Amino acid sequence: MTPSLPDNQGGDGGTAWRRIADALAASIEQGEYEPGDTLPAAIVLAEQYGVHRHTVRQAFRHLAEQGLVTVARGRGTQVSSRRVPYPLGRRVSMRANLGRIGMIGSSRMLSAEVVAGDPEICEALALEPGTPLWRCEGLSLADGTPMGTGTHWLAVARFPGFDKVYRDAEASITAAFKAYGILDYVRRSTRLTARPATEREAALLRIEPGAAVLVSLAVDALPDLTPIHIVNSVFAGERMEMVVEPFGD
Amino acid sequence: MTPSLPDNQGGDGGTAWRRIADALAASIEQGEYEPGDTLPAAIVLAEQYGVHRHTVRQAFRHLAEQGLVTVARGRGTQVSSRRVPYPLGRRVSMRANLGRIGMIGSSRMLSAEVVAGDPEICEALALEPGTPLWRCEGLSLADGTPMGTGTHWLAVARFPGFDKVYRDAEASITAAFKAYGILDYVRRSTRLTARPATEREAALLRIEPGAAVLVSLAVDALPDLTPIHIVNSVFAGERMEMVVEPFGD
Repeated sequence: MTPSLPDNQGGDGGTAWRRIADALAASIEQGEYEPGDTLPAAIVLAEQYGVHRHTVRQAFRHLAEQGLVTVARGRGTQVSSRRVPYPLGRRVSMRANLGRIGMIGSSRMLSAEVVAGDPEICEALALEPGTPLWRCEGLSLADGTPMGTGTHWLAVARFPGFDKVYRDAEASITAAFKAYGILDYVRRSTRLTARPATEREAALLRIEPGAAVLVSLAVDALPDLTPIHIVNSVFAGERMEMVVEPFGD
Repeated sequence: MTPSLPDNQGGDGGTAWRRIADALAASIEQGEYEPGDTLPAAIVLAEQYGVHRHTVRQAFRHLAEQGLVTVARGRGTQVSSRRVPYPLGRRVSMRANLGRIGMIGSSRMLSAEVVAGDPEICEALALEPGTPLWRCEGLSLADGTPMGTGTHWLAVARFPGFDKVYRDAEASITAAFKAYGILDYVRRSTRLTARPATEREAALLRIEPGAAVLVSLAVDALPDLTPIHIVNSVFAGERMEMVVEPFGD
């Protein structure tokens, strides 16, 4: 159920670039090039295959469209890691998601402070504007690689001492909630878009500044749908994909 | 239910950049700067507000995190359009989605050809590898602005003459399906990630090459969940956001 993305050019001119793309894809598949490796320059491969460098660039574009490589100006064509799938169902837990695919999820708190709640955040939490909120930042990793960084908002009155609880729970929201007797919660909404990473995000996620990030703004709620938690997450696009299966729950 | 993303820096040093960010946000809100406009350079605003240019850059970063501007190397800080929300429910139709928020959706066919189906695409369509498939490309616009471009795959045997039907339906999959007696279909799965736009995508979407695109790979099915259509879409991150509400259907 996860087709990759083949054949983004058709027609008679397709043979040479396709052959090169297939050869490179096979080399990546077989581990000759590993995630993070830079492929040889177009001019080098053009010589090797006896084609024009534009043909090699077309092969690179095809591999990029398949998600196999990232073509970035000034740093060549890099082999992508396989993206980690992240199911966006009714229940969303990073660690549980990773555990199911045999990866070890970990996270750590970056900061925690009390802020006067912004009107829009408060509205989404069904609170009066200016209500004191925890604003906590965390970083999530899979097998030690940073996947995403998130900013969380929760009501101080509902979650007293959350800074310590969240830190002691190793920045797991699911674990922290249990300390407040919340054994179950549901994802009420997620908004997703893409934008370039800021420098701070790039440093945290160990990606290039300006690399594409998948940005998510999510509202979690009690099983009765009362909103309790908002999280704005920024995921490395090259490492993560969100999976939405309305019939999968 | 759509909080924007406030206050990504706290502490004592926050006052000056916050004031500038708020002033710029207000100017954007009031239409003094319009989508696509470039904000004055940091050094200019620094002079104007009597602060260090790093303070202005912090304000820019905050606006970028809110999605109000896009900070791109070498082309300054541009005011973003408001992102068009695109609900990813059980039924997904671009035009219907846009119509609900008062925008006019349109689309056009870019290409249509028959290809031997790639093994992974065929598997997702529950077909034998190599089955003849339509491979059609379309471009979708909202109020005349390109939002996304998609590559569609469908079985030739199930959809004879799809090239003409799809073109006559003005590249609306929903309308084209009706010509084959399919009055209802459902979104079975969507995978979403972010990556930089290729040059071709950038040209089609009228965004900068390398700008962040939201990439979706979706499987549509008959109401009995038999897969019939795969579409790989590339949306301008600066213009679109996907909305997932598991309890909203």
